Amino acid sequence: MEKVLQNVKEASRITATLKGEIKRKILNEMADSLEKNQNQIIEANKKDLEYAKNANLSSALIDRLLLDEKRIKAMAEALRDIAKLKDPVGRVIDGWVLDNGLRIEKIKIPIGVIGIIYESRPNVTSDAAGLCFMSGNACILKGGKEAMNSNITIIEILQYVLEKNKLPKEAISLIPDYSRDGVSWLIRQDKYVDLIIPRGGEKLIKFVSENSKVPVVKHDKGLCHVYVHEDANLDEAVKICINAKVQRPGVCNAMETLLVDKNIAGKFLPKIKEAMENEGVELRGCEITLEYIDIKKATEEDWHTEYLDKILSIKIVDNLEDAIAHIETYGSGHSDSIVTENYSVAEEFLNRVDSACVYVNASTRFTDGGVFGFGAEVGISTNKLHARGPMGIDDLTTYKYKIYGNGQIRN
Amino acid sequence: MEKVLQNVKEASRITATLKGEIKRKILNEMADSLEKNQNQIIEANKKDLEYAKNANLSSALIDRLLLDEKRIKAMAEALRDIAKLKDPVGRVIDGWVLDNGLRIEKIKIPIGVIGIIYESRPNVTSDAAGLCFMSGNACILKGGKEAMNSNITIIEILQYVLEKNKLPKEAISLIPDYSRDGVSWLIRQDKYVDLIIPRGGEKLIKFVSENSKVPVVKHDKGLCHVYVHEDANLDEAVKICINAKVQRPGVCNAMETLLVDKNIAGKFLPKIKEAMENEGVELRGCEITLEYIDIKKATEEDWHTEYLDKILSIKIVDNLEDAIAHIETYGSGHSDSIVTENYSVAEEFLNRVDSACVYVNASTRFTDGGVFGFGAEVGISTNKLHARGPMGIDDLTTYKYKIYGNGQIRN
Repeated sequence: MEKVLQNVKEASRITATLKGEIKRKILNEMADSLEKNQNQIIEANKKDLEYAKNANLSSALIDRLLLDEKRIKAMAEALRDIAKLKDPVGRVIDGWVLDNGLRIEKIKIPIGVIGIIYESRPNVTSDAAGLCFMSGNACILKGGKEAMNSNITIIEILQYVLEKNKLPKEAISLIPDYSRDGVSWLIRQDKYVDLIIPRGGEKLIKFVSENSKVPVVKHDKGLCHVYVHEDANLDEAVKICINAKVQRPGVCNAMETLLVDKNIAGKFLPKIKEAMENEGVELRGCEITLEYIDIKKATEEDWHTEYLDKILSIKIVDNLEDAIAHIETYGSGHSDSIVTENYSVAEEFLNRVDSACVYVNASTRFTDGGVFGFGAEVGISTNKLHARGPMGIDDLTTYKYKIYGNGQIRN
Repeated sequence: MEKVLQNVKEASRITATLKGEIKRKILNEMADSLEKNQNQIIEANKKDLEYAKNANLSSALIDRLLLDEKRIKAMAEALRDIAKLKDPVGRVIDGWVLDNGLRIEKIKIPIGVIGIIYESRPNVTSDAAGLCFMSGNACILKGGKEAMNSNITIIEILQYVLEKNKLPKEAISLIPDYSRDGVSWLIRQDKYVDLIIPRGGEKLIKFVSENSKVPVVKHDKGLCHVYVHEDANLDEAVKICINAKVQRPGVCNAMETLLVDKNIAGKFLPKIKEAMENEGVELRGCEITLEYIDIKKATEEDWHTEYLDKILSIKIVDNLEDAIAHIETYGSGHSDSIVTENYSVAEEFLNRVDSACVYVNASTRFTDGGVFGFGAEVGISTNKLHARGPMGIDDLTTYKYKIYGNGQIRN
């Protein structure tokens, strides 16, 4: 198995030097090839679906697993979109000349070999491969076991395009061992793998973070808060809260807990209750909330829970200090928003809340690589280092210093 | 012990919000206080020296341990220099406005709690504390056991200044358990510690890298190469090689292996032999080298060795390809240089050698935060992610996105 990684590492030295026009051409050919070979993919996918049905997986999971003509077309389109992104490799991000004439340039370069560990959806396979390839990296992918046949077929199609272009097919690789052991093995190969990106459930991310010898950029949960301050425009606050909760409840940038300033609780809570219940949201409140509106009581566990569903916990807070303390204790450092017209309070919230994205007077739902203008998204990092928040292909690079001299020596 | 880290984390929330002028004032007061209390430091240091002598530590180690009036003055001056650095916190590194009017700012912020693990020299204690403080971070330090008394006294002096300024003294903390167990414990506290920086021997760095649950930026060895290409100006090449090897042989950016193009071996090797031997450098050559000059034979181990001494291994290479392959196999990704007048060869070397710093026609000795203009240096990172190469206080920050809205919701 080590040989596999040696080959991926070798391939990464070649992908690192590819010109943008070559990468774009190949990504477009990969897109065409996915569409041309859709029957082959659908056949492989049928095997996965059968396995999933026999294993009694949930219908939601089976739906995520399913590939049909439309979804394969979407995968191809995603590759074409990636092919349109600005190539980050080689970009000069800083540069200066020393007094002795030495010219220093700080240049973006690919990271090398990226290991991506993800779950069921087989479309992630082509997305992840495309993003790594466009940023000059080789990748080794570990998808969900239940999507194994689909993933193998997709990778074979992509690899065939690489070979046709006289590039090493290992630039886009699938992990040779598809079991959990494969993950344990991969995350300890720091000699060959430069970065591990786990995407998936809390258990997977915890396991990878705790056991990896390779640096990890994790895409952990989003326990996002909106704090409605006493100086908020309450109608605006209702709109923002509704959007943050229900526009797409199943994603990481949706609001899970609403913090309401005690001085406006009497006015705001009935409004938000009506609006949320109209949208079919189940509300759970702290004890003080229950004095104003008749909803279910929230438990300690609620403040820790990323529902990913039409459920919202509500807590009354005394002031900004109290709101920040709650977010510090229960938040996941993803996205948090304050609604207020008070300048100083807004600034203090923005400065003190230690999350990847902090908002004033806007929905948390904007935390998204596409929305931010990064194009296709690797994910949303909950790391503090290397990449934080929405992660585009720019974040699949690191840098080096190129130093141009004409005989300089150090005194 | 967990309580200690809770306090450090709390303190980091306060240091993160300190204004530049306050941080500078406090660092200057710390510098004054070190000088004023020098006798106390020297007394504590005497205990460490006695321990070291009784433990039969080497005289080199004992010299590194020693603190006298002059060295304490240098420590104070280092803090005053740190106080003059540009405050990285709050700097806007990117910013744009979305079509819907949402204004996004990408802002540098402190990392939080930084754990620094280092060996004998007690001056690192005040340097590391000062760098972390100026960049808005709290720190927890683990110095060498043999410098324990000196470190405790230095930290107490710095903490006293914090308290006098009504700041939590835990912003600059020493690890409560000074044994190896203390390191094992610290590197697993990912709930409280945001970054671990190990500085020291290979064993320490390997142990930390392999066992840390906290992200690590390591400061590993520098196995640096100079490649003298066939189109080099040979006199310039001699000067660069001598500088890279002997200007300060005991540091990580010194050359350890010289690669010589076979086409100029006959002309260059006698020159470099004479120059190196004049400087008292012991030479060890590959088999082909020995056909030209009479020196000791290099073994496979030599190519792997960071001598940190006046010893140099020499290898004849066929061409650029061969030189790059050698560097890929044996280098440590720190600093590598090519001497050549050939434009295409220089560019290819710069692009393909995957080291933090790649040079053309200059000595590797320039890889240094001070030389690069970063001011005081945290170290030289051999990580590929987060920070690479010379690391100044700018690299002790991460970023967050501040997003300013006026009621935006997502469609």
